[in-house]
Amino acid sequence: MSAFDIRAMAHAAREASRVLAGATGEIKNVALCAMADGLLESRERILSANAEDMAAAKTEVHPPAFLDRLTLSVPRLEVMALGLRQIAELPDPVGEISGMWRRPNGLTIGRMQVPLGVIGIIYESRPNVTADAAGLCLKSGNAVVLRGGREALRTNQAIAGVLAASVTSAGLPEASLAVVPTPDRSVVKEMLGLQGLIDLIIPRGGEELIRAVREGSRIPVIAHDKGLCHTYVDASADLGMATEIAFNAKVERPGVCNAMETLLIHADVAPIFLPGVVARLNEAGVQIRGCPKTRAIVPGVQPATGKDWDTEYLDLVLSIRVVDSLEEALAHIARHGSGLAEAIVTSDHGRAMRFLREVDAGAVFVNASTRFTDGYEFGMGAEMGISTQKLHARGPMGLSELTCRKFIVLGEGQVRDSRT
Amino acid sequence: MSAFDIRAMAHAAREASRVLAGATGEIKNVALCAMADGLLESRERILSANAEDMAAAKTEVHPPAFLDRLTLSVPRLEVMALGLRQIAELPDPVGEISGMWRRPNGLTIGRMQVPLGVIGIIYESRPNVTADAAGLCLKSGNAVVLRGGREALRTNQAIAGVLAASVTSAGLPEASLAVVPTPDRSVVKEMLGLQGLIDLIIPRGGEELIRAVREGSRIPVIAHDKGLCHTYVDASADLGMATEIAFNAKVERPGVCNAMETLLIHADVAPIFLPGVVARLNEAGVQIRGCPKTRAIVPGVQPATGKDWDTEYLDLVLSIRVVDSLEEALAHIARHGSGLAEAIVTSDHGRAMRFLREVDAGAVFVNASTRFTDGYEFGMGAEMGISTQKLHARGPMGLSELTCRKFIVLGEGQVRDSRT
Repeated sequence: MSAFDIRAMAHAAREASRVLAGATGEIKNVALCAMADGLLESRERILSANAEDMAAAKTEVHPPAFLDRLTLSVPRLEVMALGLRQIAELPDPVGEISGMWRRPNGLTIGRMQVPLGVIGIIYESRPNVTADAAGLCLKSGNAVVLRGGREALRTNQAIAGVLAASVTSAGLPEASLAVVPTPDRSVVKEMLGLQGLIDLIIPRGGEELIRAVREGSRIPVIAHDKGLCHTYVDASADLGMATEIAFNAKVERPGVCNAMETLLIHADVAPIFLPGVVARLNEAGVQIRGCPKTRAIVPGVQPATGKDWDTEYLDLVLSIRVVDSLEEALAHIARHGSGLAEAIVTSDHGRAMRFLREVDAGAVFVNASTRFTDGYEFGMGAEMGISTQKLHARGPMGLSELTCRKFIVLGEGQVRDSRT
Repeated sequence: MSAFDIRAMAHAAREASRVLAGATGEIKNVALCAMADGLLESRERILSANAEDMAAAKTEVHPPAFLDRLTLSVPRLEVMALGLRQIAELPDPVGEISGMWRRPNGLTIGRMQVPLGVIGIIYESRPNVTADAAGLCLKSGNAVVLRGGREALRTNQAIAGVLAASVTSAGLPEASLAVVPTPDRSVVKEMLGLQGLIDLIIPRGGEELIRAVREGSRIPVIAHDKGLCHTYVDASADLGMATEIAFNAKVERPGVCNAMETLLIHADVAPIFLPGVVARLNEAGVQIRGCPKTRAIVPGVQPATGKDWDTEYLDLVLSIRVVDSLEEALAHIARHGSGLAEAIVTSDHGRAMRFLREVDAGAVFVNASTRFTDGYEFGMGAEMGISTQKLHARGPMGLSELTCRKFIVLGEGQVRDSRT
């Protein structure tokens, strides 16, 4: 047991969650705008806490990208505030009743969308997650317990302090959001055991963090594992379109989860398609690793090893494999895909439909780049991440995925007959 | 490691699940009818396996109810076969696309309902679960690995053998369903670690089984914890209706999860409501345990202890508490309810709506008995159980809850702009 009482924090969040569940969309939006205002009004307090975190981080060994993610500035605070205002503009997911049906005995039954209750977020050093996650949880009527990285602790506490105070100005409980105020790892372990107080854990960060949370949690976890995305160029593909899509999926932003890692090409079009696309990718600095057939068509390509098909490069590296059929492409994806996003380029309707039906992934694309896998791009607004699992939330997780649906039943005195 | 290779069985199920995911509703229905026919045609083989299980069980100490649940007969096989035919008649949940929207860039985005993949069911001695679960999983396009109780092992193997053979007659893979052929407990432990091969574990049985599965599983679990259901009689209730609903919820079938365990009554109506309802419940053999206010109104009622409010009696026992307000009722339910089903009896619209919105349970009733909490009663057909958890499936779990929804995106060559 650590000196800090995570159970008491979760318990206060649980009490707050009952108030949040009953709050109208209007009140929640007032709170979100107050949170945005608070971030800007308290910018000095937040930036000075951030400066302390930065000073401490610089005494340790961290890669420059890490320090960049940790850094706050007035423009970054403005982006966070804007994000909160955008969440306010989204429709309230709570209370929606989607279709009610009437039973022969007159009972009227439907499902009502309601908050989950208390959400725990465990994340790494980006302090903007604190505001984003707090905003999404509040809008969906959930209380949230945030546990950020130790390097951002002062920044996160400052942000959460400002946000919680803003929330109370709208009449909502201060315990609607809270940051765990200690870097003690044993607190995370305790937190993951608070089933009954916390309803859902969302880890956001690297593979190691997610693995540790998954293994340690007694509470359901929704996570984003990794993105090993394929693009399959069918024999009937428009090859110009296929080149643009493959290039975009690999090159536009290679370090993200929805970038392509493996290109699959039907053998019929490989000889005319591959030389051009490889040349274009090489020009953009992409290193290619190919199967023997690829290497026979484009001499000089490095050989792909078995490990390549399972590697999320997150870099300007691409593995290419020539396949003899749609079936072979589907089997390759079933075996090596991570279930995030997969694409086919084809002009054949039947093969497009088959790919859509049979590929087991959160998002399946026909004739478009996997890079679109994103809550904003899908038109759903801000997202809490992209789930690579199947239960509850699959693909980009928006406000709706932070709620659940309960049955509501309206009667006029109906009782159940023993014979039914 | 046991001699039996559960990983190989799950792997075969995974392969089969890819075929099932692509099977049409028509083929699945042919398979379900063949399964029903098979059960009746092979009744001698199944009943003789069951006789062996019964003979072995009788050499051990088991309560009569246990032996009754284990026993098969021709009428019981007929009920199982009928259940499979009823599943065939339900609409195919797979492939439904619920609304597609078009983005400004022309991408058309929607969600398609698809199978989960492989479902693992861990259950106790009722052999009818073998056929029910196999039917529901097949119809929803999932392969299933069944692990029943050791006392029913021969029966379950015989049933699964017949069902798997029937499935092949419809052209679907034999590995679509399989029973773990050993009572070895270490196999369950291995099975719960097969994440990546099994997508969902559903335990069906007593509290102990469910707790053990939850704690041991690396795979997501959906379970039915317990049912501690309340009925709240509001100050504005039609008291005749309230009496009928309370009587039905407690007495009609007290041993099931959706029966009422605690009656809450508003203080304004308690003096006129309680004497009559207690007399009627007493007549039906119900033992009452009351709060001090209840006992002041109805002398002779036993006192309720703190433990009573948290006890699922599953018997002709009822705890009664008088509350001063709807708020107090809501707080009692929030603290003691198990999240299965809760009811209010009221003629006040505002309080009905507030109860519907704020009570955190799988099914919330206005003016009806909690006993209706059931897939058939809700008009959704056969159910896999009732989930008391919030993620993915809440309340009665039908075919739809055995599927998930993936995003599908139709494009015409769209690529993502770096600036978006």
